[in-house]
Amino acid sequence: MTYCLAINTHQGLVLCSDSRTNAGFDNVSSYSKTHTFVWPGQRFIAIMSAGNLATTQQVLKRIRHDIATEAETNFLNVPNMQDAADYIGSISSHMQKLHSARDTGNTSFEASFIIAGQIGNQPPETLLIYPQGNFIHESDEHPYLQIGEIKYGKPILDRIITRDIDLNRAARCAMVSMNSTIRSNLTVGPPVDLVIYRRDTLDITHRLLMNESDAFSKQIADAWSSGLVLALDNLPIFEWEKSSQT
Amino acid sequence: MTYCLAINTHQGLVLCSDSRTNAGFDNVSSYSKTHTFVWPGQRFIAIMSAGNLATTQQVLKRIRHDIATEAETNFLNVPNMQDAADYIGSISSHMQKLHSARDTGNTSFEASFIIAGQIGNQPPETLLIYPQGNFIHESDEHPYLQIGEIKYGKPILDRIITRDIDLNRAARCAMVSMNSTIRSNLTVGPPVDLVIYRRDTLDITHRLLMNESDAFSKQIADAWSSGLVLALDNLPIFEWEKSSQT
Repeated sequence: MTYCLAINTHQGLVLCSDSRTNAGFDNVSSYSKTHTFVWPGQRFIAIMSAGNLATTQQVLKRIRHDIATEAETNFLNVPNMQDAADYIGSISSHMQKLHSARDTGNTSFEASFIIAGQIGNQPPETLLIYPQGNFIHESDEHPYLQIGEIKYGKPILDRIITRDIDLNRAARCAMVSMNSTIRSNLTVGPPVDLVIYRRDTLDITHRLLMNESDAFSKQIADAWSSGLVLALDNLPIFEWEKSSQT
Repeated sequence: MTYCLAINTHQGLVLCSDSRTNAGFDNVSSYSKTHTFVWPGQRFIAIMSAGNLATTQQVLKRIRHDIATEAETNFLNVPNMQDAADYIGSISSHMQKLHSARDTGNTSFEASFIIAGQIGNQPPETLLIYPQGNFIHESDEHPYLQIGEIKYGKPILDRIITRDIDLNRAARCAMVSMNSTIRSNLTVGPPVDLVIYRRDTLDITHRLLMNESDAFSKQIADAWSSGLVLALDNLPIFEWEKSSQT
């Protein structure tokens, strides 16, 4: 399984992904799921993937090949992020059909992607590309997108993330969302890849790859746990506890 | 969808369930999912249900019928909680088979149950009964059970719930877990049913049915949101924020 998260705030983008892949519990590996394509000053595009690893690797290989060969459509010449999403969607569904045609069993070749970035002076955008190749945009009411094991880490995002949130604060919130998911599901695991992109810089602002023993990641996890215990301690008490106190 | 949670601590049991049922988004109703059977001083048994509403209602009807008719096996004479779980499992799988045999489509008649309670001087127990009729026990390492929409509310339980937790604190934690689930999934909704059972009392200790406008429930939700914001504010800052502060 996988957990990938993209947040689009007024100040820029936060991307966070885990690195665990597994084909059965006895076949666990570590692969980065965030891939960045940067032409400094021109465009910044990041793609995150979940689902069948062979499909996602082939989609990425094709993206890189199209850039290298200056294909008619590639990440360097797509006019906007929506067209980039459409381009990825068409490659992804093509690859899935190809593999399904060869398959003799009932294997799922499905893959989902999040694409996030900024092209020139257009606003930064995030899009979620479904296995079917179609896609949706983040919105003002819901300024984040998730793929993979999305539920454990969603409540904190629903409470905290807005368009107006400070970019570093959004990044901390993403780390907490990832940490909660890793704690509750062993198929999501470190290293955690965190990319922060400040609007209009057209280059990666910060990138952290945090493994299991990463000191900062551990500080965040510990501080969050303490904060939750405190939050629980500060909840109002039940009516019957009041009478037993007097 | 549904969310039901049972916590088994050294001090007793906490049961929390929502009340929303839906057959499609345009057919939403409200049904309590926690059913208690109490013979004061003798035994306390509670059952919570998720899944096909017709199946769960028929299972409950049969349980009540067996008590009323003093059937060979019923809640009043089962010697222990495991036998009670086995009894529910056999009724449930029987009902599902009956309905499936009549079905002309691909309807899922599956239902899951949590049974929790104490019989005489035996220790309180919680058990999760799968649609197949088999069941599992809570454990010292994992002293809670969930059915239905379990993921949104799991991270807080994983961090907080132990056997040693204070019973009222566990109940507040259950309310927070439920609140997070309701916020993130519209198919889980109030009124929220909270049952607190103090060990060896062999009677319901406290029961709250909290609807959308319930004042205490709203206080808990607000205090929890404030606590989370504070926890986020207290997280360590990134290295690059330190340099920009100086």
